[in-house]
Formats: sequence, structure tokens, C-alpha cells
Amino acid sequence: MLDRQDRIEKALDAALPAPAIAPVRLHTAMRYAVLGGGKRVRPLLAYGAGELACAQTERVDSVAAAVEMIHAYSLVHDDMPAMDDDVLRRGRPTVHVEFDQATALLVGDSLQSLAFQMLSGHQLADDARRQLEMIELLARASGSRGMAGGQAIDLESTAKSLAVPELEFMHIHKTGALIRASVALGARCGTGLSDTQLDQLDHFGKFIGLAFQVVDDVLDADSSTATLGKTAGKDARNNKPTYVSALGLERARELAGELRDNALRALNFLPQEGGHLRQLAEFIVLRKF
Amino acid sequence: MLDRQDRIEKALDAALPAPAIAPVRLHTAMRYAVLGGGKRVRPLLAYGAGELACAQTERVDSVAAAVEMIHAYSLVHDDMPAMDDDVLRRGRPTVHVEFDQATALLVGDSLQSLAFQMLSGHQLADDARRQLEMIELLARASGSRGMAGGQAIDLESTAKSLAVPELEFMHIHKTGALIRASVALGARCGTGLSDTQLDQLDHFGKFIGLAFQVVDDVLDADSSTATLGKTAGKDARNNKPTYVSALGLERARELAGELRDNALRALNFLPQEGGHLRQLAEFIVLRKF
Repeated sequence: MLDRQDRIEKALDAALPAPAIAPVRLHTAMRYAVLGGGKRVRPLLAYGAGELACAQTERVDSVAAAVEMIHAYSLVHDDMPAMDDDVLRRGRPTVHVEFDQATALLVGDSLQSLAFQMLSGHQLADDARRQLEMIELLARASGSRGMAGGQAIDLESTAKSLAVPELEFMHIHKTGALIRASVALGARCGTGLSDTQLDQLDHFGKFIGLAFQVVDDVLDADSSTATLGKTAGKDARNNKPTYVSALGLERARELAGELRDNALRALNFLPQEGGHLRQLAEFIVLRKF
Repeated sequence: MLDRQDRIEKALDAALPAPAIAPVRLHTAMRYAVLGGGKRVRPLLAYGAGELACAQTERVDSVAAAVEMIHAYSLVHDDMPAMDDDVLRRGRPTVHVEFDQATALLVGDSLQSLAFQMLSGHQLADDARRQLEMIELLARASGSRGMAGGQAIDLESTAKSLAVPELEFMHIHKTGALIRASVALGARCGTGLSDTQLDQLDHFGKFIGLAFQVVDDVLDADSSTATLGKTAGKDARNNKPTYVSALGLERARELAGELRDNALRALNFLPQEGGHLRQLAEFIVLRKF
């Protein structure tokens, strides 16, 4: 997986405008937001899915950069005082702290535009109509009925006690939609998978997206700020409903394992039994940050 | 032009998620932001350009809705306390005042996603590759080297005295990029124009975008809040460099007329001598709000 980590860093670096290009402060802040580390889970999922579909890796580079840009923009906006009001991200000051709020707003806005520029300005598929479908898929996954909608549900839920089905609904949007899209887009860079296999891969994406969020909730409750590189214990402090508040720490941990098992079962129907996606599923559940 | 005003309102209404769809507050706020009036200059430019290129009007509907969504998102974010901190827009409270800041942030983010969904989820051109180019064009016009970049330059310029060439650079990005894109995208919904004609149309888009901003500066300095439907005198209060501060009111008015004349000259090379675009150019310079 190391060479893919390397690929995505290079792809992001190449896609982001150089800091010397005007407006300098905005471009410097965009690079700060995106190139500051991060696990790159979404790009790695795209590469893993692309491999199963026999995609050209150069095509997956563009998809991987685009989904990471959407993710990074959502973190920048989410950390702002109007939302989660957080000062620490990936072990460093958040963008609005390091720069200012207006710049953070524009960084997020510009990263979203750049994500769609990546998907439209490079060839991702042999068939241009398929590429249009891919762009629509990312737009839907990012918007008010996907990731941004999940954030809105999250805001409405503060200080409420949610049942597990409601929590699931929130997270399927907030975190799940983009993770699922990362898998789907990676796979669509190639033509090696049948429609049935794409469906199985989509099951994988759904389960692993939910597992990711359950683990996030567990880590927030159970880790130190130093280990996470972002403020720990934030959910409880902000009175946010989580899998830990709904189920308790032990049961939430078990649930993460069950979701991973479901994800892995979906991979059994795929070439190489899912290849790198299998390792990624383990990483997502066993990670410590 | 009235039937086009009607078309764009219907297209926007149909494209925005119904308020009953979850998350309700977000969707209600998105509709509030977009459907609250507005001159619809960018959609009208798209229809005017589409007509010259013999485009199917249904195709231009999607483009017109997309550019208006990008414009509306930029207004919502621009009005937030971190940016211009304004409370009035189109004669009503701004989105963060009527709802809250977190919702305003997500409204803007979701409208940008929806704009790209419009351009990818509907057929805009016979050739899907051409449609990909159109999406890339809007992504570039919206991002850090287009509209959002112009906002960043604007922020950096507060309390500075800019010479006219620097002002022009700022506005070519901040307002000009999206207006120019509206013309270019409308024209690309059809195939009726030669490359030379598309170039002439692009000249028109550049001149009319700049004229629009010069008139905006004049109106801000010279009109009442009641007439504008947004806070008047804001530029002087915020110590922003404008064409009025750089040139004086009279010379700024003359400049707007000269830019319009240049725009009209570019139309001479086009079918119907530019058709509705000619009227629109007059409206942009003579408007009172």
C-alpha cells in the first residue's frame, strides 16, 4: 500500500495550484488543508477498487485526488466555529486558526470546484458518457442528499438521543456516501467488473463506510488527542449522539467487527477475493487514529 | 425575455430538492437562497448565447440553473460574518440570519454540488466529450483561479488603494469568470457557432462581465438600500477599493458605457447581431438594482 500512499500524495501535490500562483494566501491554505497528512482512506479505497476492475492507475489517480479533495473541504468547513469549532486537525492547527475564517471558507469552496475539475479535465473512462455518470455520482454523494446532508442531520441531532437506525441514517450520509463513492468511482475507471460484481463492491462500500464511522466514534471516546491528531472526547463534550452513546463502548467495538465481516463477505465474490480492499477493511477497523 | 425568466424559475424550482425531503431545514434554506428573486443575469446570458448557437432550450435550462446555483452559493457564503457580514440580500434577511451560520455554510456547499449534478446528470451536448469540457469550464470558472480566487483577492485588498489594472484583475475573477462562463456554456449547448464566433462571444462575455461590476460599484455608491434590496454604501463603509473610489462616480459611469460598447461591437460578428444578448447588455448597464 505504500506506493499508493506515495502516488496519492504526488497526485494531490500536482493537482493543487502552486503556492506562488495568485491568490497566494488561498493557494497556500489549500495546500495546507490537503497536504497535511491524513490517512488517505478514500483514495486507497479507490485504488483498491480500480485494481479489481483492471483500471489504468493514472485514471484512478484523478479519482483518488478528487475524493480526497471533497473530504478535505468537508473537514475544513466542519472545523469552522459555525460548525464543530475545532482547533486541531491532523496534529496541526485547523485552517481557520492557521489562516482565518474567510480563507477557510474559500479553501473549502475552491477544493470542491477543483475536485470536479479533476473528474472532468482528465480522461477517466474510455466512454465519455460513463465519465459523466461518474461525475454525477460524486456530485450526488457530496451534496444535500449525501455528505453535506449528513452534516445537516448531524447538526439537527446535537443534544438528541438517537436510536441506532437514526444514527445509521445520519452516518450513511455524512461519512458513508463519500466512502461508498470512492469505491464506486475507482471501480468505474476500469471495465473489468460485471454489473453483479459492481453491486457486490457497492455492498462492501456501504458496510465499510459504516464500520469506519463506528470506529471513529469508538476512537473519539477511547483515545487521546495526541494519538488522534484531532481533539478527542469531542462527541461527548458536544453532546453528540454516537454509536458509543447509543450502544456502549464494548458493543460499538463488536459492531465495527461485524460490519467489517459483512464487508469482507461481499469481497468473496470479487477477483482476488477483493485484493487490497481486504487489507484496507482490516486497517479501517484496527486503526488507532 | 419574460418567458426565459419564467423558464429559469421553473428550472431552478424543479432542480432543487423539495422542502419535504430530509434534511428538511437544509433543503428549505437552499430553496430560500435560490428562489428568492434575483435578476437572473447569468441564466439570461446563457439563454441568449444558446439561442445564437441554435441550442435546444431544454439543454440551456440545465446550464442556466447550474450557473445560477453557483452564483447563489457564492452570495450565501459571501454574506456570512466571516466574509462581508451582511444581513440583507434581495430585500430579505440573508441565509445565515434567517437560518443560522452552519446552515448557510452547508447551503453553499450543497448548491455547488447540485450545480455539477445539473451539468453531469442531463444531456447538454450531442458529444459527451464536449459536455465534459463544459463541466471543466464551470469548475475552473468557480474555483481558486476563478470566482473563489477573486473573492480571496477582494479580501486581501480591503483598505488598500488599488490601481485600475489591479481592480480589473480582481473583478475579472470575482464577477467576470462566472458571467463569461455563463455565455460560453450557453453557446456550447448548441453547435451553430464557429470557433471564431465562439471567440467573439467570449469577448462579449469578458466585456459585459466587467461592465456588470463597474455598474455594481456605481450602484453601491449611488443608490439606496431599498432600491438595491441589499445594503447600499457597503464598499465605502468596508473600505473596499472600487471603480468609484479609483475613478470617481462620473468616470466610472462613463467606463461602464464604454465597456458595453465594446461588448456590443463583439456581437456584430454573430448571428442576429447578438439577438437577446444585445438587450441584455443594455439592461446590465442601465439597471437600477
